[in-house]
Amino acid sequence: MEKVHDVIIIGAGPAGMNAAIYANRAGLEVLMLEKGAPGGQMINTSEIENYIGLNKITGPELSLKMFNHTQQLGVEYKYGDVTEVQDGDIKTIVTTDGTYKTKAVIIATGTKPKLLNIENENKFAGRGISWCAICDGPLYKGKDVIVIGGGNSAIEEAIYLSGLANKVTVLVRKKLRAAKAYIDVLNSKKNVEIKLNTSVVEFIGQDNIEGAIIVDNETKEKSKIQFAATFIFIGYNPKTEIVRNLNITSDNSYITVDENMKTTVAGIFACGDVVDKKIRQISTATADASIAAINVVKYLEKIQ
Amino acid sequence: MEKVHDVIIIGAGPAGMNAAIYANRAGLEVLMLEKGAPGGQMINTSEIENYIGLNKITGPELSLKMFNHTQQLGVEYKYGDVTEVQDGDIKTIVTTDGTYKTKAVIIATGTKPKLLNIENENKFAGRGISWCAICDGPLYKGKDVIVIGGGNSAIEEAIYLSGLANKVTVLVRKKLRAAKAYIDVLNSKKNVEIKLNTSVVEFIGQDNIEGAIIVDNETKEKSKIQFAATFIFIGYNPKTEIVRNLNITSDNSYITVDENMKTTVAGIFACGDVVDKKIRQISTATADASIAAINVVKYLEKIQ
Repeated sequence: MEKVHDVIIIGAGPAGMNAAIYANRAGLEVLMLEKGAPGGQMINTSEIENYIGLNKITGPELSLKMFNHTQQLGVEYKYGDVTEVQDGDIKTIVTTDGTYKTKAVIIATGTKPKLLNIENENKFAGRGISWCAICDGPLYKGKDVIVIGGGNSAIEEAIYLSGLANKVTVLVRKKLRAAKAYIDVLNSKKNVEIKLNTSVVEFIGQDNIEGAIIVDNETKEKSKIQFAATFIFIGYNPKTEIVRNLNITSDNSYITVDENMKTTVAGIFACGDVVDKKIRQISTATADASIAAINVVKYLEKIQ
Repeated sequence: MEKVHDVIIIGAGPAGMNAAIYANRAGLEVLMLEKGAPGGQMINTSEIENYIGLNKITGPELSLKMFNHTQQLGVEYKYGDVTEVQDGDIKTIVTTDGTYKTKAVIIATGTKPKLLNIENENKFAGRGISWCAICDGPLYKGKDVIVIGGGNSAIEEAIYLSGLANKVTVLVRKKLRAAKAYIDVLNSKKNVEIKLNTSVVEFIGQDNIEGAIIVDNETKEKSKIQFAATFIFIGYNPKTEIVRNLNITSDNSYITVDENMKTTVAGIFACGDVVDKKIRQISTATADASIAAINVVKYLEKIQ
């Protein structure tokens, strides 16, 4: 008979790895599947300064530390490109290499930032291109930065950055779409300039980003802008294709969970960035994960 | 004129310290007040194995690492025995040494476990006496442990421990008060023994706990029981006396917050163990803290 795991965790970012640690320590038989390197979005982060206890650390280093922690406890880890999660009293995880059976599932697949699809975007990821002002903004204190995007989150992050940077230039492809209250606050900031109808054509720089070629979408005129970092807020894609059949996602494609990290399907939990919530940090990912794993234990014991 | 801080954080456990890191990195002028050593309940924990990235570390060591992180960023830290938090557009923090003014407050005072008030209880705190099965249970895998308490949380934690320990003995002063569903699961465990009407008279051991003298409350007969660790679940006292005047606590004296860690009083936030919630771990404390600090920034910017 095919082996049935207690819990399979899909994804090995900080959420998946911490869920694995909590489930393993609770005595569960855990399998963690990941199709990339462990670490999730941390891998593309040059410097992490807000994981408390570790001062400054590179994303790859923190990823490795977290992964080593899982391995020291004996968490089973396999390459797995999951294509579907099938419900049932015993759940089936379908991967490109075969299937696994499990009593419970924790989805920790995360998100990926939407791309501008322009020159040098990948090259400077984590080297001046950031998708998180709270995480990386303080690294550019007193410098010039640009924000790309015109929705609520872009404006909110631009306000945040205006308290840190020397100058914040907000590039908006067409018009501002953010709420008026946000725009009013942004307009009150003396070190913020908003350029409407403006797109980035390509990023420029040597090892780190140094600026961009931008274009005025009305006049088609191109110009060069210099900055130390750019913060891109044009949205994220949660990696939820593998659970599309389960109807556990909200309108925005993130997974809906309750305070116990339970989805609406019994035995299927989610944690980390893939969950529908407001703040996505390493700390919130690991907290979600501990809650998810503890509730998997309760689910398996049938005490909730 | 008296200085007005952007935010004063009361308490320097993992929640208070992480709130300080997030507020400081956001460019706020932060003051962290604590009347004990930084670290909170971590200080009394001998071994922490579930703070992801650090494998095994002692509580005092992790406390110091976290504190150093705050200091490296330049967080202002003062001794402060806070006696009252007074509301207002500008809030007043009253301490035994004087008052401070601030625009926003984050309460991160934590809880303290209720004591049995018996011999050697303090001596073995963190050396065989634990108040958290999820945290410390896995350190006693395959050993004999006892659980003290008969309410829902005691029985829930006993079930958790039964998956790890060789034997779990549950000592209940009078009768079990937990929900029937919990008791049924506990009774189904072959390695669990429940002793009703039983109290602990004193803990015994050399450097670490080795056992206890217990008494049958009906027959008054005393006996000796040996174990590697005891988990005490007779409740916690949240440290909320200083905000009693603000009416921000729930019936159980914990502070009620929304998903943004806001209390019902504008500009007053709370995070960590002092908050009314289900799971109290270092990871959930630090997550709360990052959410609280980010929302303090929004509060000060008037964008929420």
